[in-house]
Amino acid sequence: MVHFEKTLSSENLFEGRIFRVIRSKVLLEDGKTSHREIVCHPGGAAILPMNDQGEVYLVRQFRYAFGRELLEIPAGKLEPGEDPEAAARRELWEECGFSADSVRNLMPVYPTVGYDTEVIHMYLAQGLRCGEAHPDPGEFVTVEKYPLKDAVDMVLCGEIRDGKTVAALMKVQVLLDRGELRLI
Amino acid sequence: MVHFEKTLSSENLFEGRIFRVIRSKVLLEDGKTSHREIVCHPGGAAILPMNDQGEVYLVRQFRYAFGRELLEIPAGKLEPGEDPEAAARRELWEECGFSADSVRNLMPVYPTVGYDTEVIHMYLAQGLRCGEAHPDPGEFVTVEKYPLKDAVDMVLCGEIRDGKTVAALMKVQVLLDRGELRLI
Repeated sequence: MVHFEKTLSSENLFEGRIFRVIRSKVLLEDGKTSHREIVCHPGGAAILPMNDQGEVYLVRQFRYAFGRELLEIPAGKLEPGEDPEAAARRELWEECGFSADSVRNLMPVYPTVGYDTEVIHMYLAQGLRCGEAHPDPGEFVTVEKYPLKDAVDMVLCGEIRDGKTVAALMKVQVLLDRGELRLI
Repeated sequence: MVHFEKTLSSENLFEGRIFRVIRSKVLLEDGKTSHREIVCHPGGAAILPMNDQGEVYLVRQFRYAFGRELLEIPAGKLEPGEDPEAAARRELWEECGFSADSVRNLMPVYPTVGYDTEVIHMYLAQGLRCGEAHPDPGEFVTVEKYPLKDAVDMVLCGEIRDGKTVAALMKVQVLLDRGELRLI
């Protein structure tokens, strides 16, 4: 059985700096109609930097939506027309000052499927060359280094809660456990 | 160093059926001001059902924001004042028709930290008793069963992309690999 919804009409409700909100009238598969309010977002890129010791770098920053600091992998939204891997490398350079000899695609994640079009393109950076961070104006982050095992412990105990960071750390742990990834 | 942003003023921009949008003027740590546009969401609960064979149940449903079906763990938004574990059990009963002897907290995930207050409370259901689904009106889902290993493969190859589903499957895989979880 294939599930579907067909758009009957669509209107712009809100146009913001980062995202806009639309409301669509949709035809459901039982012939009834409903409405969907959707956040339209340009998408983002995120990258987990890991060194040859199996240590990962996370950035600590204040997140207004939660009123406190969170620990995350470097990430940012895509600029118009920007290649996702290029965006991930740019964020790695801006937030951590790192470049990477090897970037592996960890596959995109859809953080909020119920009402938000955002796609986060996810990468693993290895073969790191470390330099000085180049934060955007108004961006304040602190880079912290953890053994991967400790970061995974922080995911399991709920100390790390950011969805993209949870996804990246756990994928890399499973790839290492399976022997499908090696430290470089 | 502690990072912070202080709210100077806040206004409602949009009030929807599921979420609202606010814009706040904030004081940054360098003394400058900026604006934050934030989606305010009531939060949700999600639950991964796993049987004593290590098979997991996922629901396939159409997601309007992506224009196609996605494979996810059962989930839904919290009703006002609802306990998150009770909400997770309710969704498990509605979408799959299951009750569970054992529900383990997999810790909350914040799917979209940059601009959305949503918290997803995550659980693992074991000791399943399977019955008939009780979908909400207008909700159309198909329940599918996979060995956990196959579901984890689907995460790693990008076939499963829903963030909460990625987080739950990978956490459970790592807990099993570490011997911190057993099949019941």
